[in-house]
Amino acid sequence: MGRDSRGEQKRSITLTDVARLAGVSVATASKALNGRRQVRDETRQRVLAAAETLSFTPNPFAQALNMPRSGTVGMLTSDLEGRFALPIMMGAEDAFGSGATSVLLCDARGDAERERKHVEALLARRVDGLIVVGSRTDPRPSLGQRLPVPVVYAYAPSDDDADVSFVPDNIRGGALAVEHLVAGGRRRIALLAGDADYAAARDRVAGVTEALQAAGLELVGGAASFGPWSEAWGRRVTAELLDSDPEVDAVLCGNDQVARGALETLRERGRRVPEDVWVAGFDDWEVLTTSSRPPLTSVDMNLEELGRTAARHLFHAIDGQRHGGIVTLPVRLVVRESTGGAENGAD
Amino acid sequence: MGRDSRGEQKRSITLTDVARLAGVSVATASKALNGRRQVRDETRQRVLAAAETLSFTPNPFAQALNMPRSGTVGMLTSDLEGRFALPIMMGAEDAFGSGATSVLLCDARGDAERERKHVEALLARRVDGLIVVGSRTDPRPSLGQRLPVPVVYAYAPSDDDADVSFVPDNIRGGALAVEHLVAGGRRRIALLAGDADYAAARDRVAGVTEALQAAGLELVGGAASFGPWSEAWGRRVTAELLDSDPEVDAVLCGNDQVARGALETLRERGRRVPEDVWVAGFDDWEVLTTSSRPPLTSVDMNLEELGRTAARHLFHAIDGQRHGGIVTLPVRLVVRESTGGAENGAD
Repeated sequence: MGRDSRGEQKRSITLTDVARLAGVSVATASKALNGRRQVRDETRQRVLAAAETLSFTPNPFAQALNMPRSGTVGMLTSDLEGRFALPIMMGAEDAFGSGATSVLLCDARGDAERERKHVEALLARRVDGLIVVGSRTDPRPSLGQRLPVPVVYAYAPSDDDADVSFVPDNIRGGALAVEHLVAGGRRRIALLAGDADYAAARDRVAGVTEALQAAGLELVGGAASFGPWSEAWGRRVTAELLDSDPEVDAVLCGNDQVARGALETLRERGRRVPEDVWVAGFDDWEVLTTSSRPPLTSVDMNLEELGRTAARHLFHAIDGQRHGGIVTLPVRLVVRESTGGAENGAD
Repeated sequence: MGRDSRGEQKRSITLTDVARLAGVSVATASKALNGRRQVRDETRQRVLAAAETLSFTPNPFAQALNMPRSGTVGMLTSDLEGRFALPIMMGAEDAFGSGATSVLLCDARGDAERERKHVEALLARRVDGLIVVGSRTDPRPSLGQRLPVPVVYAYAPSDDDADVSFVPDNIRGGALAVEHLVAGGRRRIALLAGDADYAAARDRVAGVTEALQAAGLELVGGAASFGPWSEAWGRRVTAELLDSDPEVDAVLCGNDQVARGALETLRERGRRVPEDVWVAGFDDWEVLTTSSRPPLTSVDMNLEELGRTAARHLFHAIDGQRHGGIVTLPVRLVVRESTGGAENGAD
């Protein structure tokens, strides 16, 4: 119900009402009212008639139904490095066409009091909605249901089921990586999973385990290794792995930093990548993946698409459509030389 | 003159007027009116008397003179990775005490049209001022002198002398690095300077050259090498360097990525760092400097301090003080193991 749930104003007619009366989807109703060509004339007429019957008027400040009221969205993050927040921010802006929307980013640095002040400042600046971005995929406290604008959560889900959250599908990501390794003939696969305190690490392990079982395989050593998200740990645990399981033919790493460490140790131990051992990471952080030797295959979280989806949902929520829950979005595998990919090396 | 230059309102009394009448600096006047202890009683009395004489009233929306009117500052960046913008953003927020100010960040992605729209959106949200942050230290186009709020430029200076810009002192940074290498007994120093298209690269070379001359030394090979800001180039050019000048005892690199490449090649060629060769970089990007082998000495641009200074200036400008020009701010050397520093290694 969005703004109407405050009870301060009469419930206004939304696009959803128009679509329902016309017997079409909200997307079709939106396209029809926007004059897009993908809609048949007959359908358009029905939607226009429904809009007239209900006295539905699109937001006068927006040139299209999907555009925000003031053209400004607040984004709240605690991601100090910007690795996750900035691509999500770009995707959110792009959801409304080039330059049509300004996303205003505030960094709360994981501090609840600072976050509260930023929310106040953004609401005082009359943003149309809020996107809350986390630096990890573990649930975070909800901002509650009493804010005057719609809120969506991206990357880190809200701990309240009444909220809408969009997160990358890390389970599927783990499976994607394994399917690629198995298709390449890899049978002795090790998993250096990263920090078990993170939902992302545990989800990736779950997806890996599932896909290995489907292929009739088991992890080298019988289980994943857990440790810090660092190059140093990647180097150290890879050395241990080569001592205990010298026949390993693939090393899957919980993030790109661990994978960089694995690549270094393999090189120093005289193992050729990808000829002898395949290596892959997660996150596809380009400053790491493209400059490693060889360039690193990695599971990309599609963060710009996640930002676009969150922003689109936000403005459907502004128009009155709302449903809660956590939505997982597809990730993709970016294949580079470390698993035999076709791209050229960095040197 | 700040907002008053629009001519829409009578010029109001500013802190500068009070300070002038009391015969103290603006900083002292501010401290006195804020009740801080560093001011002698006699001075405080004089400032209070001057404020009374001039009927000076601090901004009623702010609890302290140094606080912004609405508590919101717009920050415009084109730094897609956030490496430079985010630390500057944090410094700017901290300039006004924890949580007192919200900095709203917009990313223009280097696109002039998008930048114009973001400026409009921020002004429509009634921010107190704008901080414009670049992703490189080369001059950028001014937003002009006609905006209704003060503007300061950080990291990338404005190309208009009437604007105020704060940039890191890259010349001094180059000199700092050389002085450290020379103090450590290094005599055969090579400079892998990075991309000559960047003012940062050229300024660092200038500082290096100056400090070497002061020490009676010359660069190995007689000049700096220039190339892309990448690990791959760092690896390649270090290999060439070891072929042409095997006696090199220090490699100074234009950024941390180049230095990472240099470290890798030195290791593969059997040169010990720091026993045989010292290595240092620029920028102190921690994801790279602390996880390299050994951890990397680097010149830190003090970006948080740069953000604090820019924000402080912005609010002095709001209070009526303005002067144009480019101000260079001090940088500092962070010494780690790659030049014999005391810190422990990453593994």
